[in-house]
Amino acid sequence: MIRVLVLHGPNLNFLGRREPDIYGSNTLDEINQRLQDLARQMNIELQILQSNSEGALIDALQGAADWADAVVINPGAYTHYSIAIRDCLASLRLPTVEVHLSNIYSREDFRSHSVVAPVVMGQISGFGLESYLLGLRAAAAVVNEARR
Amino acid sequence: MIRVLVLHGPNLNFLGRREPDIYGSNTLDEINQRLQDLARQMNIELQILQSNSEGALIDALQGAADWADAVVINPGAYTHYSIAIRDCLASLRLPTVEVHLSNIYSREDFRSHSVVAPVVMGQISGFGLESYLLGLRAAAAVVNEARR
Amino acid sequence: MIRVLVLHGPNLNFLGRREPDIYGSNTLDEINQRLQDLARQMNIELQILQSNSEGALIDALQGAADWADAVVINPGAYTHYSIAIRDCLASLRLPTVEVHLSNIYSREDFRSHSVVAPVVMGQISGFGLESYLLGLRAAAAVVNEARR
Amino acid sequence: MIRVLVLHGPNLNFLGRREPDIYGSNTLDEINQRLQDLARQMNIELQILQSNSEGALIDALQGAADWADAVVINPGAYTHYSIAIRDCLASLRLPTVEVHLSNIYSREDFRSHSVVAPVVMGQISGFGLESYLLGLRAAAAVVNEARR
Amino acid sequence: MIRVLVLHGPNLNFLGRREPDIYGSNTLDEINQRLQDLARQMNIELQILQSNSEGALIDALQGAADWADAVVINPGAYTHYSIAIRDCLASLRLPTVEVHLSNIYSREDFRSHSVVAPVVMGQISGFGLESYLLGLRAAAAVVNEARR
Amino acid sequence: MIRVLVLHGPNLNFLGRREPDIYGSNTLDEINQRLQDLARQMNIELQILQSNSEGALIDALQGAADWADAVVINPGAYTHYSIAIRDCLASLRLPTVEVHLSNIYSREDFRSHSVVAPVVMGQISGFGLESYLLGLRAAAAVVNEARR
Amino acid sequence: MIRVLVLHGPNLNFLGRREPDIYGSNTLDEINQRLQDLARQMNIELQILQSNSEGALIDALQGAADWADAVVINPGAYTHYSIAIRDCLASLRLPTVEVHLSNIYSREDFRSHSVVAPVVMGQISGFGLESYLLGLRAAAAVVNEARR
Amino acid sequence: MIRVLVLHGPNLNFLGRREPDIYGSNTLDEINQRLQDLARQMNIELQILQSNSEGALIDALQGAADWADAVVINPGAYTHYSIAIRDCLASLRLPTVEVHLSNIYSREDFRSHSVVAPVVMGQISGFGLESYLLGLRAAAAVVNEARR
Amino acid sequence: MIRVLVLHGPNLNFLGRREPDIYGSNTLDEINQRLQDLARQMNIELQILQSNSEGALIDALQGAADWADAVVINPGAYTHYSIAIRDCLASLRLPTVEVHLSNIYSREDFRSHSVVAPVVMGQISGFGLESYLLGLRAAAAVVNEARR
Amino acid sequence: MIRVLVLHGPNLNFLGRREPDIYGSNTLDEINQRLQDLARQMNIELQILQSNSEGALIDALQGAADWADAVVINPGAYTHYSIAIRDCLASLRLPTVEVHLSNIYSREDFRSHSVVAPVVMGQISGFGLESYLLGLRAAAAVVNEARR
Amino acid sequence: MIRVLVLHGPNLNFLGRREPDIYGSNTLDEINQRLQDLARQMNIELQILQSNSEGALIDALQGAADWADAVVINPGAYTHYSIAIRDCLASLRLPTVEVHLSNIYSREDFRSHSVVAPVVMGQISGFGLESYLLGLRAAAAVVNEARR
Amino acid sequence: MIRVLVLHGPNLNFLGRREPDIYGSNTLDEINQRLQDLARQMNIELQILQSNSEGALIDALQGAADWADAVVINPGAYTHYSIAIRDCLASLRLPTVEVHLSNIYSREDFRSHSVVAPVVMGQISGFGLESYLLGLRAAAAVVNEARR
Repeated sequence: MIRVLVLHGPNLNFLGRREPDIYGSNTLDEINQRLQDLARQMNIELQILQSNSEGALIDALQGAADWADAVVINPGAYTHYSIAIRDCLASLRLPTVEVHLSNIYSREDFRSHSVVAPVVMGQISGFGLESYLLGLRAAAAVVNEARR
Repeated sequence: MIRVLVLHGPNLNFLGRREPDIYGSNTLDEINQRLQDLARQMNIELQILQSNSEGALIDALQGAADWADAVVINPGAYTHYSIAIRDCLASLRLPTVEVHLSNIYSREDFRSHSVVAPVVMGQISGFGLESYLLGLRAAAAVVNEARR
Repeated sequence: MIRVLVLHGPNLNFLGRREPDIYGSNTLDEINQRLQDLARQMNIELQILQSNSEGALIDALQGAADWADAVVINPGAYTHYSIAIRDCLASLRLPTVEVHLSNIYSREDFRSHSVVAPVVMGQISGFGLESYLLGLRAAAAVVNEARR
Repeated sequence: MIRVLVLHGPNLNFLGRREPDIYGSNTLDEINQRLQDLARQMNIELQILQSNSEGALIDALQGAADWADAVVINPGAYTHYSIAIRDCLASLRLPTVEVHLSNIYSREDFRSHSVVAPVVMGQISGFGLESYLLGLRAAAAVVNEARR
Repeated sequence: MIRVLVLHGPNLNFLGRREPDIYGSNTLDEINQRLQDLARQMNIELQILQSNSEGALIDALQGAADWADAVVINPGAYTHYSIAIRDCLASLRLPTVEVHLSNIYSREDFRSHSVVAPVVMGQISGFGLESYLLGLRAAAAVVNEARR
Repeated sequence: MIRVLVLHGPNLNFLGRREPDIYGSNTLDEINQRLQDLARQMNIELQILQSNSEGALIDALQGAADWADAVVINPGAYTHYSIAIRDCLASLRLPTVEVHLSNIYSREDFRSHSVVAPVVMGQISGFGLESYLLGLRAAAAVVNEARR
Repeated sequence: MIRVLVLHGPNLNFLGRREPDIYGSNTLDEINQRLQDLARQMNIELQILQSNSEGALIDALQGAADWADAVVINPGAYTHYSIAIRDCLASLRLPTVEVHLSNIYSREDFRSHSVVAPVVMGQISGFGLESYLLGLRAAAAVVNEARR
Repeated sequence: MIRVLVLHGPNLNFLGRREPDIYGSNTLDEINQRLQDLARQMNIELQILQSNSEGALIDALQGAADWADAVVINPGAYTHYSIAIRDCLASLRLPTVEVHLSNIYSREDFRSHSVVAPVVMGQISGFGLESYLLGLRAAAAVVNEARR
Repeated sequence: MIRVLVLHGPNLNFLGRREPDIYGSNTLDEINQRLQDLARQMNIELQILQSNSEGALIDALQGAADWADAVVINPGAYTHYSIAIRDCLASLRLPTVEVHLSNIYSREDFRSHSVVAPVVMGQISGFGLESYLLGLRAAAAVVNEARR
Repeated sequence: MIRVLVLHGPNLNFLGRREPDIYGSNTLDEINQRLQDLARQMNIELQILQSNSEGALIDALQGAADWADAVVINPGAYTHYSIAIRDCLASLRLPTVEVHLSNIYSREDFRSHSVVAPVVMGQISGFGLESYLLGLRAAAAVVNEARR
Repeated sequence: MIRVLVLHGPNLNFLGRREPDIYGSNTLDEINQRLQDLARQMNIELQILQSNSEGALIDALQGAADWADAVVINPGAYTHYSIAIRDCLASLRLPTVEVHLSNIYSREDFRSHSVVAPVVMGQISGFGLESYLLGLRAAAAVVNEARR
Repeated sequence: MIRVLVLHGPNLNFLGRREPDIYGSNTLDEINQRLQDLARQMNIELQILQSNSEGALIDALQGAADWADAVVINPGAYTHYSIAIRDCLASLRLPTVEVHLSNIYSREDFRSHSVVAPVVMGQISGFGLESYLLGLRAAAAVVNEARR
């Protein structure tokens, strides 16, 4: 059994409503449902949370420090400036997968810089809902590898 | 009847106390009073909120998504780095007017860059309390134009 | 009675003809008409001028130095590099409102920098024809405030 | 019959006198003569103008808006900073060819940036007098193509 | 049946020998074997190629233009400067997944910029051999989605 | 009697757990204990608070505006981008000492820039727990100096 | 009789297939045919080559060093970074014309910088197939001028 | 007898009125008077002109090309961006002295860059009215030196 | 007994005379006196030196390499460019405290960068004379910590 | 009687030997002789010093603090980086004239930036030996003005 | 016996023909002859190769991975952008000497940056043919040192 | 007989003591001894000097101007900012070899820029003590070449 914290950053609760040409038409509920389905299949226990607040996201990460085996996080807009979330991820020392729905490298210039990327294990971006599913697989692979 | 959300960002609750040579001597209550007066005159219903928290400001914007016809926002310091508020404004698809008490272009370099400006309808800065009143007029004009 | 100089910079005489998706379909005559209407209502006397020449715009500003109580200026393309107009505005010591039809912060990078902004009282951009009307109101408010 | 406006920017009236190692020994009259010769050959009607004034160049472009089928312009030094001329060219919506006598990419750094290049059809630089002749051919080709 | 071209860029034939602390101890043969295993499982036909030559990589991409349904590419060092490969990928119009063994955002500055990223569908980096397997899954998901 | 507000920014509650090679092995409780010991010795009354939330830190600062004589703040990651905290400190007009456990100038480039430094009285960085103790002494010295 | 080497860089063999909105619908064969037609008319002998490989393009240039009177080159993507091709052109000391199908100054930022431009005679960009024809005329004019 | 053209750029006709703390309290007439006095003393014939128009300044420089032995120019705001005036000065091949009333290196950043400085003989800035007098002496010295 | 070298860089001998609004009214003698008082109290032996010469400061540091237990240095203007002093401090391997009288982060931009900061133990700036006293305490704390 | 300190920076003792195409063929002795001649004429007492050492130049400036009425300084290469000399000049509060033999704005890029210029009264560059003579006149004018 | 691979990058086969004022008049054959002479003298076995192709140079380096004791490489233009060659050199783990005929630091700006320099043992530039001979000596010294 | 001045910059007298992992374990005496040995072998007369003072290094260079045939210099930290030493080397017109013990291109960013490199004959870096010996050989080769 692997335990994974899935964290959704700001505005992701508006998915589907929000610029569907960029972020796709899936709602956050649909994404979470698909994640739960895959998790069950792979014998993974999930804890899922969304918040618009930088501080609340850090609180959640710290709260899962002793429970989770890995983290899958889409920091949303905080990707580009939240050194506080970066520092938190670095202090957790949990394998972390950064995911993005859209290809952040084909949009505005400021979106191509992720301040958290240097401290995570790896990054997956551009595949919409699939980014999360691949992220969960990546997290599981890393944990399994380490347990071997 | 037009419904407008007026949002005040961080530290604006300290207006009057705070560097009056830059921000003028009006308190936030006085500004809100003047806004209410003008709103009544123009048959506008206002919802007014101040918060020091980025997440709370986003929550408020999302909460007004189905109620408001337009937004007048002074994002305060978040103007210069809150991509999260920018993304929220972009996802709301409501006509938004960005206002500033001071002329942000005659101060420190970092203040002359607004990360939200590219996604709002327009910006009004430098007229003190008057910036808000002009902002309300602008919002009303845009909504009326669209209703025509 | 308040006296306001309204100055239109280069290419604004081609409004309506010129990229209507950006600048709207109003002609300069229509804008001037609307300004005159509002001026009459507010007991403001207007002097209006358009020129494609940087030197002529400076001549006009200097010429109005002793007549005008305030200036509303849309410097057009000169916004982005005419330090000569900036210096002129700074030397006039008249309250000046900078207006723009389009939201200059949502276009090409070079348009988001205004060299005159640091020396004017405030800036209004993005509301099309309405930018001018709000600009006139702002100018009047500033003059009235000073006379009190 | 094709009608082409040929515009020479500042200091080009001093050609021949001016740094012949960079700009060649042809005078502006000789260039205009060669342009007229080629125009006659190709059944093109030319209107040719030189001015040192940015405003006058814009006036000339606007004046030809309804007459010309295409523009050949050497903006001289204005190439590097006249956003006003750029905006004018963009508003004309006439096919425009930017020409330069010298290779602007093998000189001072600031000369390698043309602010008008992004809004013209194409650019020809480095062939001396020949740049103009090629420019006229290019203009004619574009107009003929469009008429087909 | 889905057909996928897998392309390995320069120096990837030295995997295992090459800085194992960064790139892991897997050889390219092992990676290819694991890819073939997964492909068989998912009913995917693979074509795999490695080259140190930029031109040869472009030739291979063009050669697969009519055969492949998708591309999985690790451009190696060319990631950071080969606009030629970028242009090739853009012209192919095939769904492309960019993969990297290491987390390119936690290394030298120049490695955090990918010139091909803006024209691919998505990017996966930092999971070693697993990056390729996730990349193959991503490619399959995209093709299946499109066929639906 | 001097009253000092001590504010700890994001992730400082994880001290000891968090990268001990950089931040030392002291926990936040130990630091607070040592601060209380020194405060008692120097006849200083302390109010101590830690939060991961930018907004909560501002709320705390505003809440102490009328109580405190000075502030000792370690803004953690917010040091590098929270203009909101900077504006709050500037509006408080209380003598403020910025402290850092690690030498922020010998780490990643982005850590060598503090957005709050220009508005505080002074900065002490690099001495671990000792940075706080020196910070308290500095605050006391400044207040005593002003009272003289 | 004038001998001209015409060199097409990477991906130009995919013309017509490749983003026709940018590069037009002409295939490379059509361009070469039009070049041969014009060459025959002007008594020019052509040698034409396309390659995706930087090294092969340099080999071709060196191979023509003693045969050709001039070079017309569209370096494609190599325009923006191949200092090796630049050095080769500089060492050949043959008059060289750089041509581009699209207006490289109205596209992505990185395309507006040509590393070969400083060492060629001149540059023609933006006229599609016509760029090549004008380039051939320019090359002939330069050679004829030198022979006079 | 030496003939010197003295050229005053934009806004210098407002000297005395204009920010006297920066530019001093001398009017342009007083400066010209002092220049005439010194010229008489040194047997120099002066031609003096002020214009707000870039084009008119270039016209004046070209008009004096065959009359003047030297130029003393205060390009005012054009100092910082008029490549057209720079090109004109370079083409005149007359010894030119650039003068400034204020120390342009102790003001806003953009004022410390002069685009004309690289093509003039020398520059004198910061001595108020005295800058002009020293400029005239410098011009005379250079001409006399050349005549020896 | 702890031995500390105190080094004052260029122009610090002019303290009191020199811009008292920035550096305070204390003379260097007064600072040294206060340092000696505190040193006696804490059983520290001091060696104090001021020099305007970069080379002499390095000589002094090298001369104290075998005597001193720690260094307190105010490198004055050399803070911002003396890589030679930085290299010297790095080679000494003595705990070093960098102190500044003024808050170097609230002044000209170039003062906010210290080239020595990355190789010292920590930095204290902005507390006037108190910066030195805190620096001495910091040095003693570090040495005592190491001796434990 | 006016007392002026004339300071020559590094390598100026090699004048005449050193790159005469840039610095002219005058030796330092000749320059000093000409300065003495003019000083006698104008009733000025001179103290002249040359040094290659930054520290020695500062010592000399401090040594003259109580004797001199003004300073004429050619800081040579130190112009471009000696913040120590800049701070010294700022602390002296004597009117200072910065002079340069060559036009520092028409040479390498790094020479166009003077770190001392912002704190001197004015700058004269480009007139060879004459720069010093004009500098002495400027110094005298400033002192006389102040005595009036 | 020491085995050394000597690699010449693009355009070096044109030495002698190519800009002799920069690269000297030696041909590549003469350089190779001199290298062979010195190698014989020092009991070194050489393998020498030139290629214009980045891929071929990498192939050659990989091919010599098990044969060579050291590498002497002049990467020519690839010095400035071939991260692929850099990665190859880093993976070889052979002592490598980078040589350049010309002083790459006294030419165009872009030539002063070598992307391979950070991963080689050392660099020798500016001594023409002698650079290679010194490079061979350096390589031998390093190998001998390691064998001791 | 060839005469060579060998100059060691700041901190090189601490070699061996100083960061041996970067600079090796050789002392300066050992380096000088090895240089003398090689010099005797090659019939070269050496003058060797070390100083921590920029001015003293310039004095030494000027002092050897008429004696030396060549210079071998390791400017230490001054490499990166001493324009004064650069100007001195440029004025000497002696063939100069710049040497560095460490590979300055694989360390901190600021070390990869040498301000003296553009005016020396060539540069050798990264071979420890061997850099000096190769430097002496290079100097001798250049002098012998010139004497031929």
